[in-house]
Amino acid sequence: MQRLFINTPLTAGSHVEPPAEAAHYLTNVLRMKNGDTVLLFNGADGEWKATIHLEGKKRVRLGVVEQTRAQTSLPDLIYCFAPLKQGRLDYMVQKAVEMGVGVLQPVITQHTQVPKIGIERIRANAVEAAEQCGVLNLPECREAAKLDRLIDEWDPSRRLIFCDEAHETDNPLPILQSLQPGPLGLLIGPEGGFSEQERALLNRLPFVTAIPLGPRILRADTAAVAALALMQATVGDWGA
Amino acid sequence: MQRLFINTPLTAGSHVEPPAEAAHYLTNVLRMKNGDTVLLFNGADGEWKATIHLEGKKRVRLGVVEQTRAQTSLPDLIYCFAPLKQGRLDYMVQKAVEMGVGVLQPVITQHTQVPKIGIERIRANAVEAAEQCGVLNLPECREAAKLDRLIDEWDPSRRLIFCDEAHETDNPLPILQSLQPGPLGLLIGPEGGFSEQERALLNRLPFVTAIPLGPRILRADTAAVAALALMQATVGDWGA
Repeated sequence: MQRLFINTPLTAGSHVEPPAEAAHYLTNVLRMKNGDTVLLFNGADGEWKATIHLEGKKRVRLGVVEQTRAQTSLPDLIYCFAPLKQGRLDYMVQKAVEMGVGVLQPVITQHTQVPKIGIERIRANAVEAAEQCGVLNLPECREAAKLDRLIDEWDPSRRLIFCDEAHETDNPLPILQSLQPGPLGLLIGPEGGFSEQERALLNRLPFVTAIPLGPRILRADTAAVAALALMQATVGDWGA
Repeated sequence: MQRLFINTPLTAGSHVEPPAEAAHYLTNVLRMKNGDTVLLFNGADGEWKATIHLEGKKRVRLGVVEQTRAQTSLPDLIYCFAPLKQGRLDYMVQKAVEMGVGVLQPVITQHTQVPKIGIERIRANAVEAAEQCGVLNLPECREAAKLDRLIDEWDPSRRLIFCDEAHETDNPLPILQSLQPGPLGLLIGPEGGFSEQERALLNRLPFVTAIPLGPRILRADTAAVAALALMQATVGDWGA
């Protein structure tokens, strides 16, 4: 069933009006009719079944019927990523949402080659991924920060996992399995990798844990999914 | 340094002529000059440094100088995947190569919605990913097979991991960590998932191990990278 993110409180019996773009999508692209049902979520009130009421050619109202799933919470995981070129960035954001990150934090590193970060586009990709993948929470999208500042302001009680291409071992599993559960961050560098200076800085910090990701070089968006899968299965919310 | 896959034996002192497309890419896109160097690999003889010799406007010869890396072998891992729409399929193949699969095996399932499989395009994506990610081996690209036939002809001594969206647990790690090392396969279904009949068939087979991939629904290409990361870190070639 079609799922729609909507920025409105959801309660049984209420009526909500989707934004023009969503209304267009429901009526003209999906060709939904009066009485058809969709699923609504707003990141706070769980998931609700709603009925479509068409009013004239363009106006759509959604009658909220009943809750289908209770609200869940996202892992306390800040996903810090150096932005990539647009197509790969879209993918990277979608995949991070599927993998259940709580915060999307763009980071500018020395080798980051993307000058302007489109926060709105990041948010739109996060919404799309949440709609498609049954995720009930939208991660918070933060403004881009320089790596130095991110590190300066980092809460040292939050462990920051950093994928180090020059790590001396290949397997991240023993390292991740030795960590205590708690608030987490993951830092993924740009396509050009971190600078030597950045690697040295990160490896000196007591709240940073460097991990390898196998014997082959992974592209940044691949590394992100691989690292998130291993983190969720060890110290994340995939259970014991 | 630019890496180039070339379908020719490589030995010190030999000269090889790249195909027209690669020659065009080296001279017109990368604007390489006489004496510039590239890295060559053919999937069998390791990686070699080579020098460019331009002969006239279009002809390029590559003088093979010295070996930079010895040949490595790929994990004995058959990656069976239901083809996706083209853009996502390109990504899926590239990512499987980065993650080090040995065989790319397209599989037609009941819910597979892509009628024609472009094996040549799959191969081109595999070559591109190997060139970009420093992988020295090209996975073997097999012709598409129907799931029934794939199962009928499967060597029962090869464990087939299958990502089951309806698995009763969330965490694949305990299951994967209990497996013995040996030849492996991974089966990823189409966007619509496996049919109930297919799931029942797979779960009956003694050589099949079903795994979950967390509490959220993952898209097929995300599931592929997540499953491969967990397999490589437990029973694959990421080491103990």
